[in-house]
Amino acid sequence: MPAERIVTVEELDFLATGAWILGTGGGGDPYHGLLALKALYAEGARVPLLDAADLDDGAMVGVVSMMGAPVVNLERTVDPAMTLKPVMTMEKHVGRHFDALMLSEIGGGNSLQPFLAAAKLGYPVVDADTMGRAFPSVFHTSFAVGDLQSYPYALADIRDNEVLVMRCENWLWNERIARKILVEWGSRAFSCKAPRTGREVKDWGIHGSVTQAIELGRAVHTARQRHDDPIAALLAHQKGRLLFRGKVADVERRATAGHLRGVCHFEGLDEDRGQRYSLEFQNEFLVGRRDGKIEVTTPDLICVLDSVSGEAVGTERLRYGQRVTAIAMPSPSLFLTPKGLAHTAPRAFGMDFDFVSAFGSTAPGASA
Amino acid sequence: MPAERIVTVEELDFLATGAWILGTGGGGDPYHGLLALKALYAEGARVPLLDAADLDDGAMVGVVSMMGAPVVNLERTVDPAMTLKPVMTMEKHVGRHFDALMLSEIGGGNSLQPFLAAAKLGYPVVDADTMGRAFPSVFHTSFAVGDLQSYPYALADIRDNEVLVMRCENWLWNERIARKILVEWGSRAFSCKAPRTGREVKDWGIHGSVTQAIELGRAVHTARQRHDDPIAALLAHQKGRLLFRGKVADVERRATAGHLRGVCHFEGLDEDRGQRYSLEFQNEFLVGRRDGKIEVTTPDLICVLDSVSGEAVGTERLRYGQRVTAIAMPSPSLFLTPKGLAHTAPRAFGMDFDFVSAFGSTAPGASA
Repeated sequence: MPAERIVTVEELDFLATGAWILGTGGGGDPYHGLLALKALYAEGARVPLLDAADLDDGAMVGVVSMMGAPVVNLERTVDPAMTLKPVMTMEKHVGRHFDALMLSEIGGGNSLQPFLAAAKLGYPVVDADTMGRAFPSVFHTSFAVGDLQSYPYALADIRDNEVLVMRCENWLWNERIARKILVEWGSRAFSCKAPRTGREVKDWGIHGSVTQAIELGRAVHTARQRHDDPIAALLAHQKGRLLFRGKVADVERRATAGHLRGVCHFEGLDEDRGQRYSLEFQNEFLVGRRDGKIEVTTPDLICVLDSVSGEAVGTERLRYGQRVTAIAMPSPSLFLTPKGLAHTAPRAFGMDFDFVSAFGSTAPGASA
Repeated sequence: MPAERIVTVEELDFLATGAWILGTGGGGDPYHGLLALKALYAEGARVPLLDAADLDDGAMVGVVSMMGAPVVNLERTVDPAMTLKPVMTMEKHVGRHFDALMLSEIGGGNSLQPFLAAAKLGYPVVDADTMGRAFPSVFHTSFAVGDLQSYPYALADIRDNEVLVMRCENWLWNERIARKILVEWGSRAFSCKAPRTGREVKDWGIHGSVTQAIELGRAVHTARQRHDDPIAALLAHQKGRLLFRGKVADVERRATAGHLRGVCHFEGLDEDRGQRYSLEFQNEFLVGRRDGKIEVTTPDLICVLDSVSGEAVGTERLRYGQRVTAIAMPSPSLFLTPKGLAHTAPRAFGMDFDFVSAFGSTAPGASA
């Protein structure tokens, strides 16, 4: 099998759909990013996808993402030139070119950010991310779980502002500094995180997540074409679990401190008729309750899908009356270790309870 | 006259007293910085003072200061190692050593920050600053009035956090970014601002301000020793004007958004008996009103002094019952130009009125 293959135009649609599902409500709607990437493909760009295992230990990998409150994406489109800015700043700072770029999060529009930069620069993208989903902050990454160095990292905005964070006390301070800056910039910033060696990506990346998203999206698109149930296809493909079918009864949502926070209430339909379900979110869905009782929490992936199309519904897109289906998918196994749970379970978000898995006490964990 | 002379131990006391007066309520109490600098002098350090006119055009000058809400200084002492951090970061970034350091603001404790770094590094300090006093933000500097480039600049905190701001849209964004970061750090940061060429310092620095502070402090100390009135000596020395004698009747004060904001109310004593005076401040005193009517505003220097000792009273030190004398001193002439007023008059602080000078419509202006 070749170490590097080209991501096709057709696969871009699959990637966007799959990543939006893996976004667990966050990561930002991939629509604008997909349009921008297709425009680059129309101009002839093609992005190679590289297995993490094939990275040289000494290779230098740039970790690219957009940070902020997903709701801002409803008003601001995507511009590859903005994505590039912090990447160029970081290359200049370290004095060399990256050998490849990788994803900070496979979830939502952030899955496409490294592809936009890679298409412009002619670099490959590594088939790996640091979350296997979307999460609100860098503290919730596999690199933070691995206690890798969190700096330097670069931030840029759509104006002419650029910041290089040279040192951070720890990953929490890394997050606090970035979050304050991006809030001042309008709750959105483009980032190039601490450069990683090939060895670090091999040891601590969540591997295969780009391929996972593409295959997930392919399963949904294929089911649609065959007039099968996309959600059933998705659950079969991912070993996921149906949580709830219903409609959106109420949404409390506010963009605050650089995040989109709130809770969504659902009324049951079909087999869940007469029951109530709620999902609390901070950019991403974190806790699910049936009739008030906690049934599932982070780091399980909690995803809300349009009940007909199987397309993901982001936390910024939830609105009254939507017919939706909530599902759970197992977390990457790294986050199910004690150190992983310290970074991703409810207490890592300031909540006063432990991880509850939709997959029982013996949560299987996906391959990490 | 030699281009460079050593600042003596005796002059350190004068500098602290004079700078605290020029601080117009802000710049931070110089006491901790004075102790730290005397400790370095006790170890043998001596800091040369260099005339701006004697800088080579191509010399590179580091601009050193502490930023934040002065009230934090009541709880955190001064450590030269912290002052050094952003200086070292900036030298590493530009790839060379500074030829000299200079003051961002002569006012308050910030007058001593470059001396602490210079004492550690063996560098000279330029006899110049960018304000001729203290002001709340970098937008209020002579370099901003001159539209010089505002980046790069380095920030550090007492933990292991360091930020290099690589580009700024303008001086207002420079300030906004720094302020957000320092608030997150506890409303205090150590900064090394954009490196300046000797030519820029000669063209746009406020020259002679270190010597001015030393001579101001010397006048006060000398009057005290002779049992003369220090405030009379000060007014004679600076061509200043007495505004008001009274006692503090009330202080409204809050540390918010990285500044110390509020208003102080005074009841008149002696020739001002029966009258009321108020001073509004944002770190520094900005507006003085007699019985509600505006009598003086920024960029005039508005200073509050202990009526007996002539020692300055900072906005964070104001308390009920203090016997104080408020005086005005003329602004550096640069700030009295239309461009200068756009950066330093009340409207630059969001107030809806124009500059009112205590020196009449033909404000004389000190040498700038």
